[in-house]
Amino acid sequence: MTLADARRYFALPSPFAMRRGGALIGAQLAYETWGALNAARDNAILILTGLSPGAHAASSADDPTPGWWEDMLGPGKYIDTQRWFVICVNSLGSCKGSTGPASMDPLTGKVYRLDFPELTLEDVGHAAFELVRGLGIERLACLLGNSMGGMSALGYLALHPGSVRAHISVSTAAHAQPFAIAIRSLQREAIRLDPNFNQGAYDDAHYPETGMSIARKLGVITYRSAMEWVGRFARIRLDHERQDDDPFAAEFQVESYLEGHARRFVRSFDPNCYLYLSRASDWFDIGEHAPDARGHGSVADALRHIPLEHALVIGVSTDILFPLSQQEEIADGLRTAGASVDFVALDSPQGHDAFLVDIPRFGAAIAGFLAKL
Amino acid sequence: MTLADARRYFALPSPFAMRRGGALIGAQLAYETWGALNAARDNAILILTGLSPGAHAASSADDPTPGWWEDMLGPGKYIDTQRWFVICVNSLGSCKGSTGPASMDPLTGKVYRLDFPELTLEDVGHAAFELVRGLGIERLACLLGNSMGGMSALGYLALHPGSVRAHISVSTAAHAQPFAIAIRSLQREAIRLDPNFNQGAYDDAHYPETGMSIARKLGVITYRSAMEWVGRFARIRLDHERQDDDPFAAEFQVESYLEGHARRFVRSFDPNCYLYLSRASDWFDIGEHAPDARGHGSVADALRHIPLEHALVIGVSTDILFPLSQQEEIADGLRTAGASVDFVALDSPQGHDAFLVDIPRFGAAIAGFLAKL
Repeated sequence: MTLADARRYFALPSPFAMRRGGALIGAQLAYETWGALNAARDNAILILTGLSPGAHAASSADDPTPGWWEDMLGPGKYIDTQRWFVICVNSLGSCKGSTGPASMDPLTGKVYRLDFPELTLEDVGHAAFELVRGLGIERLACLLGNSMGGMSALGYLALHPGSVRAHISVSTAAHAQPFAIAIRSLQREAIRLDPNFNQGAYDDAHYPETGMSIARKLGVITYRSAMEWVGRFARIRLDHERQDDDPFAAEFQVESYLEGHARRFVRSFDPNCYLYLSRASDWFDIGEHAPDARGHGSVADALRHIPLEHALVIGVSTDILFPLSQQEEIADGLRTAGASVDFVALDSPQGHDAFLVDIPRFGAAIAGFLAKL
Repeated sequence: MTLADARRYFALPSPFAMRRGGALIGAQLAYETWGALNAARDNAILILTGLSPGAHAASSADDPTPGWWEDMLGPGKYIDTQRWFVICVNSLGSCKGSTGPASMDPLTGKVYRLDFPELTLEDVGHAAFELVRGLGIERLACLLGNSMGGMSALGYLALHPGSVRAHISVSTAAHAQPFAIAIRSLQREAIRLDPNFNQGAYDDAHYPETGMSIARKLGVITYRSAMEWVGRFARIRLDHERQDDDPFAAEFQVESYLEGHARRFVRSFDPNCYLYLSRASDWFDIGEHAPDARGHGSVADALRHIPLEHALVIGVSTDILFPLSQQEEIADGLRTAGASVDFVALDSPQGHDAFLVDIPRFGAAIAGFLAKL
């Protein structure tokens, strides 16, 4: 018996040149689809994900397990797969079926690890564009990106202007601000300083469990909001007696919540892939794509040249990692470029993660926008 | 030649009983003073510090090196030592001259390390009260606490009602919220998981440098504000070429800023002491002192019973570790108890650390309050 799996695989053009140099030989992308492409091939929505999710955004006949956006996507749901042909791709550089640092390098017969070429979110976006073209789709009805995927989407749009009709930008940024860089830098440091990291040459028996755990907990702290936690955890203690009389053992509910998140994540995501995608997020700056700015333009300079018919930009007031002002900046820039832009500021208490949790609010905004297309 | 040192030492009553059990034998507090106690002994201000500073708040003839609040405190300064007799004490449990986990246990002849009894901020406050009494001061003119010191001050006030005339509460809280607990829990985890931590039995040659560095960087991230960093660091790269072609080496200014902070801190604060003071901050809850609430009262229930003549409560809108709503809660509670309370909300961009940096704004508020006493 094999586990349910709805993933398909797309062979990228080989060699696949990387933006910062180097090229991938025989690289692939894992993706899933829902619904059917219509005869005019004009009903396709591509979803680019945050750092850690794979292509399994929702269940299907081939894989009935719930996806990471299960309540958003499906027949009759907010993104209605009876109308739309939806594609979700695992990012290039990730480890959920797409080629990345955890993949075999066909030239050496060894896993790439830290020999994988430097990865950018433009590479992630461009690889996804190749997939869309490979599926015979000339122009996307809509390109949707969440969090890191929103930056990959801006990269896609900057590299391939005119290839997308409408864009949905969710809880993302046109470039990373120093607070986000600082958090990610510390997450990477925790992983790299774990003695088991071993310069990327860990294995299952000697795995940087501690570093990954610290990185994940720090992620969860910044993905949620302090306000939500006051209501949710307050100062509630764990039921059980404190273990071993150790004053530093988990004692508050919020500590065991973080521990649970870390435990579920640590072995499910490859540490080298995490490092690459994390650093790519720091590097991304749409300003580098401003024409005539020699790689040093402003965000507004670059966005002004991204042509779209319609855009929906959504942000959350409690997001500390991608603050609302960054979504406003995207909305303003795309409006200057001539798109009709809906800017939606939600007051969901769940912070950056709200798009995964507060489905009613995000779903209403997205469904309302799609209905107008 | 010896280094300048203005510290004096006060022998605590021995045994000194600890709130959670156990007692210290032959324990001491390090403190410094500025100005002179007047004949009526009614001009004393006691300062309780944040987690890491020592008693050297300002320079003096005995120690001309600048203190951690140098611009706040001295002759003619905001806290004018020509009028006030100012005492600053190194917290019990710290490592800057006061007894703590880095001190010798006289019963065993060995350093306490993790055998130090569980420490609470009430112990910190009560030990400071013993010092004040030992200096022949019946009643403080003013008790001032910053950050963790603000919680120690509330502990002092709850244990010794009537012993203080006026209170200045700076960027603190009546109890820790889950976001702050989560951050501190992760800092402790980084230290404890460092292989060199060795269950607290590290030495100078095998020191938990990595864990302390991660803990400090995480501290600095939460002590400042994202807004300040956008203006200060933006996406500025370091001047030098990236080292060794390592994509994960520090490349952005914000990364080297954190590295500098960590380097200065890591060897200057004892890791075991850090763990004890950090956990004590999680545990503190003034609600435990609400009369008749059997240790489970609300903040308001407890504050309502703390009698003061005057109080000044200061907070900063950009503080993510001790959010402004927590200072409002303290101000409201002390007002209910009958004090005349000035609540000052500052919009300093420096976040929690603003009281150390934005001296003009904090100084003006404090000097204005002291002038009315």
